[in-house]
Amino acid sequence: MGKLASENSILERIERAFSRSKSGLRLGLGDDAALWEPAPGFATILTCDWFLEGTHFWRAKHSPDAVGWKCLARATSDIAAMGGIPRTFLLSLALPASHTGKWLDEFLGGLRRASGFLGCQLAGGDTTRNEKILINISVVGEVRKGGAILRSGARPGDILYVSGTLGEAQLGLQQLRRRPSSGRLPTSALKRHLYPEPRLKLGQWLSSQDLATAMMDISDGLSSDLPRLCAASRVGASVLASSLPKPRNTTSNALELALNGGDDYELLFTVARSKSKAIPSRFGKARLSAIGEITKTQNLILLDDGHERSLSAAGWDAFKISRR
Amino acid sequence: MGKLASENSILERIERAFSRSKSGLRLGLGDDAALWEPAPGFATILTCDWFLEGTHFWRAKHSPDAVGWKCLARATSDIAAMGGIPRTFLLSLALPASHTGKWLDEFLGGLRRASGFLGCQLAGGDTTRNEKILINISVVGEVRKGGAILRSGARPGDILYVSGTLGEAQLGLQQLRRRPSSGRLPTSALKRHLYPEPRLKLGQWLSSQDLATAMMDISDGLSSDLPRLCAASRVGASVLASSLPKPRNTTSNALELALNGGDDYELLFTVARSKSKAIPSRFGKARLSAIGEITKTQNLILLDDGHERSLSAAGWDAFKISRR
Repeated sequence: MGKLASENSILERIERAFSRSKSGLRLGLGDDAALWEPAPGFATILTCDWFLEGTHFWRAKHSPDAVGWKCLARATSDIAAMGGIPRTFLLSLALPASHTGKWLDEFLGGLRRASGFLGCQLAGGDTTRNEKILINISVVGEVRKGGAILRSGARPGDILYVSGTLGEAQLGLQQLRRRPSSGRLPTSALKRHLYPEPRLKLGQWLSSQDLATAMMDISDGLSSDLPRLCAASRVGASVLASSLPKPRNTTSNALELALNGGDDYELLFTVARSKSKAIPSRFGKARLSAIGEITKTQNLILLDDGHERSLSAAGWDAFKISRR
Repeated sequence: MGKLASENSILERIERAFSRSKSGLRLGLGDDAALWEPAPGFATILTCDWFLEGTHFWRAKHSPDAVGWKCLARATSDIAAMGGIPRTFLLSLALPASHTGKWLDEFLGGLRRASGFLGCQLAGGDTTRNEKILINISVVGEVRKGGAILRSGARPGDILYVSGTLGEAQLGLQQLRRRPSSGRLPTSALKRHLYPEPRLKLGQWLSSQDLATAMMDISDGLSSDLPRLCAASRVGASVLASSLPKPRNTTSNALELALNGGDDYELLFTVARSKSKAIPSRFGKARLSAIGEITKTQNLILLDDGHERSLSAAGWDAFKISRR
């Protein structure tokens, strides 16, 4: 750190951190832009995601390794939500000069592990200096032509499913906020918050079996994301509170966590009633829960212990005051 | 502005600002990700670019309209540098709540005009709140398979060319800094700084005619960018100071501006000597100047009035102290 890094030297270190296996990527780092071709019969999927210090993570609370893992993992969740396969990504990184040494190395370490785990290779990017750490990731994936599962295909009578449990990442964030910065080993909830694993295989399976009529990932919380799926499909939904896969062993309100907790990166999808027998109760490590059904009336209703209440968006909204 | 905008309402306004013509874009805004297919026989080009308040623009000096134009125009310059055609882009936008009204409208106005001018359609994006205005643009373009012009193809003896004039945008920035924030109509140099027009047609023509052996765009300044092209090609270059297309009518050092000024988004390209007769002195509105030649020795030499001096990188480097 004695010597101030130049932009070129930072680019070289990023480049060295990533090996160059190929998979559709024809030209990667070191030129003006990258070249990409999907496999024959596949279309390209594009998505991008902010990951900002002070909004999505905190320098004092999140290790650079976790920041590296999570910025890519959460961005690929949008590819999972389409039933696609992530292939390559662009990294836009802005750092204070003080963070171009050890912090950058550890960040690239976490990012590289995520890249290997997710099968998503670095294609290029842009770096600049900034007081706060700013990350933006664009992910490029592929999906069989006609195989993308959109938000807009849900029909009245479809069964509504969710993968995994909801609210655990939020619980992990609460734990992170309470613990001293050099705390003990992460709990499973904290691990969910720090090292999310998007449901790529599940999304791809639902696409390949033509099972889901609509799908999205839950990033802002069920109560914020379900209305988006319903609006895109012009339908409503009834959700059974008792069927929601809630966090266990918590003193917090588990139902509130499951409804409003963000950052879970689980898949929310709808299946025609006639095909719902094909949905197993478990897919890999993930439980699959039927949590309600799609209705013609464009309302969102929560059925809780015999009472009907309106389900209102109370998840993550960057432009509202954060409850986090 | 009375009511705080929600993330959903901002997304809706962005969506409304852009019409949905198609050109390879199969699914645009409103889903988890966008779907894209290039024309048959074409490969996809990917690039991304930061555009940050305090680094790349200033709230008090740059109108939201110019910010909207420039963030997209400069990002498509990397597509021009490959000889490609920009087609679609992802917009990542972080704003203070105070800027979600009039500022956002004017920003989207400039962005929409650039989108139309450049033929590059909005595919999706991500918005969040931040104290400073942060913009990241990912551009997706296409290029005939095998037609991309890389940085790495320059050979000793090739003639080195540059389009337009160099240093004018830097001169425009100097003018912007001096003038009061509500100054008169922009000069041509200021216009170059605020509303750059990347050399898309020139890049595409050089690709279609198979004329350039290597190419890149000049975004950080010739003295910083030429070394990158030479390093990728493992060659050196001799540049004639007298041949550089310098800004006219300036009291500043025109040679320094041409060597080190950034933000010009002109194309720097090399042509085999045998094909150099095919390069006209003008392409559309742009002068094309032969400014030197590629050498086997991996040095960068400036020949200035009979004197040889080493050309050292003194352009824009975000991690060095800014001279701007």
